[in-house]
Amino acid sequence: MKILIDNIDIIPMTKRDLVLENSCIEIDGEKIISVGSKTEGFKPDKIIDGKDKLAIPGLINAHTHMGMSYMRNYADDLDLMDWLQDEIWPLEAKLTREDIYYSSKLSMLESIKSGITTFVDMYFEMDRVGDAALEIGMRGVLTPGYIEDDRSEQRIEAYRRLYENYDGKSGLLKVMIAPHAPYTVGKEHLFKLIELSKELNTGIHIHLAETEFEEKEAYKNFGMSTIKYIDSLGLFEQPTIAAHCVHVDDEDIEIMAEKNVHVVHNPSSNLKLASGFAKVQQMLDAGVKLALGTDGSSSNNNLNMIEEMHIASIMAKAVSKNPKALSAYDTLKMATMGGAEAIGMGKQLGAIEAGRLADISIIDLNKIHLKPINNKISLVVYSAQASDIDTVIINGNIVMESRKIIGVDENEIIEEVDYRMKRLRA
Amino acid sequence: MKILIDNIDIIPMTKRDLVLENSCIEIDGEKIISVGSKTEGFKPDKIIDGKDKLAIPGLINAHTHMGMSYMRNYADDLDLMDWLQDEIWPLEAKLTREDIYYSSKLSMLESIKSGITTFVDMYFEMDRVGDAALEIGMRGVLTPGYIEDDRSEQRIEAYRRLYENYDGKSGLLKVMIAPHAPYTVGKEHLFKLIELSKELNTGIHIHLAETEFEEKEAYKNFGMSTIKYIDSLGLFEQPTIAAHCVHVDDEDIEIMAEKNVHVVHNPSSNLKLASGFAKVQQMLDAGVKLALGTDGSSSNNNLNMIEEMHIASIMAKAVSKNPKALSAYDTLKMATMGGAEAIGMGKQLGAIEAGRLADISIIDLNKIHLKPINNKISLVVYSAQASDIDTVIINGNIVMESRKIIGVDENEIIEEVDYRMKRLRA
Repeated sequence: MKILIDNIDIIPMTKRDLVLENSCIEIDGEKIISVGSKTEGFKPDKIIDGKDKLAIPGLINAHTHMGMSYMRNYADDLDLMDWLQDEIWPLEAKLTREDIYYSSKLSMLESIKSGITTFVDMYFEMDRVGDAALEIGMRGVLTPGYIEDDRSEQRIEAYRRLYENYDGKSGLLKVMIAPHAPYTVGKEHLFKLIELSKELNTGIHIHLAETEFEEKEAYKNFGMSTIKYIDSLGLFEQPTIAAHCVHVDDEDIEIMAEKNVHVVHNPSSNLKLASGFAKVQQMLDAGVKLALGTDGSSSNNNLNMIEEMHIASIMAKAVSKNPKALSAYDTLKMATMGGAEAIGMGKQLGAIEAGRLADISIIDLNKIHLKPINNKISLVVYSAQASDIDTVIINGNIVMESRKIIGVDENEIIEEVDYRMKRLRA
Repeated sequence: MKILIDNIDIIPMTKRDLVLENSCIEIDGEKIISVGSKTEGFKPDKIIDGKDKLAIPGLINAHTHMGMSYMRNYADDLDLMDWLQDEIWPLEAKLTREDIYYSSKLSMLESIKSGITTFVDMYFEMDRVGDAALEIGMRGVLTPGYIEDDRSEQRIEAYRRLYENYDGKSGLLKVMIAPHAPYTVGKEHLFKLIELSKELNTGIHIHLAETEFEEKEAYKNFGMSTIKYIDSLGLFEQPTIAAHCVHVDDEDIEIMAEKNVHVVHNPSSNLKLASGFAKVQQMLDAGVKLALGTDGSSSNNNLNMIEEMHIASIMAKAVSKNPKALSAYDTLKMATMGGAEAIGMGKQLGAIEAGRLADISIIDLNKIHLKPINNKISLVVYSAQASDIDTVIINGNIVMESRKIIGVDENEIIEEVDYRMKRLRA
């Protein structure tokens, strides 16, 4: 399909602080073919009127657990271990393949409605998550969580099957290896997974240095920090998405910068679980590659990248005692190009530019909480709400228009999830 | 007018964690006359269908600067003094009475759209802010900012006039005295304002201990902390709303608890300006009375109490390293009853209960980011968005229904503010 988005303002993220006013975007098939000028002879099948609208690159939620929407507001204001052991894990143990499929579908609709076009999901039954993404037309990175238990061998085989059947599917999906964390996956298993990632030529997604407790345990068990331990195993030689990295020291940060580790900052989750304050500006200054994530609905409790950007930016300022820390532009970059680079698609996603894939979120500027409009980049990060996202395009397809998700009955999904939640609660 | 809200879920805030399911609210004139049971012979002029909806007490924004919406996203990511001296103050100096009237009107519409029914505003030309509130039908506390300069005498007279003409007007407005801060208003002037507050029998609204710099200056100039200094002047003997209180020590907290100081926490502003992390849970434990505020659009950059609650709650957990800190219920209490007590209306506002004034915000639960619905109090604080606010009732009048503000042309206000901003920018 050929789409022309006309008379639109654009934050292309190709150059610091650049905003194109009253511009245009041409899309042909899955790609952007022109930005800012009209191609002679280009006959769009569809024209989107961009008046009072602002296009940004589709947001990339670089760390989430889509299957966990059942746990949204299910057990809050509890100590971490009580929360996990008494509430989250027992519920999780009951989840069927189809439960996860429907929960993920709900999460995807919620995601699109906050301008997210790509997710990086670590959970179970990831083939069904892939199916949901394909049906909705969402871009996703499937990273099945690996835990060391008696089904480890099967999990390795399952990775191979998932990779074979889903990686590259419809131009939307990727598969990565996901050891849950160093405290749930031992050294020998980590070595196996590193080998597997080499074999499949794909990256690794892992939780690292999320809590203070975890860091203390690392010193006790490995005699060094989590980051140093993981580096010593050679894991960082593979492309790595490291979620959290809250409890890291200066040397850890140096290692992550040098080894091109993609750190995913999850501010809401880190605050809500009282995990701590990630040193975002310090990592940025050290050259660490940063992406942004919402984590799961169980610990956030939403998948709202617009709010996540706001929280990330203002929190970084307070943490560094510097109101110039993590500017609006740098924050938006984490949520777009930072995510694109994390999933190895820094050349294809993360910016609105001819030749890149057409993943675009369009903001309705005609909202009272955005007025008067003084700075469009600030506006996105500091003032906007998820509900300002009007239209979303993924891989050249319009998946949401005027806040209506195309080809999906939202209420049907909600009813199905409600029905399943009743069983899970019982 | 008589209103029946039928078949609705209610968080009345009359008892910890209480949620009434499928209940009802009867309103007669400006008051709630019944909750949970129907009065015989009550003939409503208007019935609101509460199916899939949740009523909460109207949110009280206990510290804001409504006239500052022109500065929204106008100058971000700057050092505090550069921001004030080079950007905010020069623009502020150009503001006319009518500029402030329109900016405040815009702020009020934005406020109502995030469920705010009462504001506490510290700014200039507060009679015009009062006029705007009366036209919209919003409840507000007018607190004209007092700075020590050559117009101080006139300001004292202006307080008396404002009090005489606006306090109690239409049952919506109150007037309080507002010395800007101890570093802009000297001791003699503070004494005069304390006397004035006694004369008018009203409270005092003041910025206290917002920044580290301010606290250092307090020790240099007064030989003690800001809180101790203000206490030593006897100011806390008057009902006091103290905005910020970020840089306070254990003794300061004890003083504020003992003197019934109402502290207004403004998390977004404190983070964005890198002022620091208020010790919210510690204050709560010490018995300090807490309210919640957005501060102005210039330093937030929105007036979104739904997001403010989310940030307040999760930030408090990280600051206290305790995921049980500032629970969803305690957060909602800050934003409702806490604000009501701060403005001396703890018996009339802050809860949904027979005999109280009918200030109610109604949330549309039929949103994908709220599903499945597991805990309605958690949902409001952790998952909801401002755009979920569907209907708002203030003083028994419906001011917004299905997100449409009644009797106000939103676009007219936006156009007027846009037009004025062009002049201000020039």
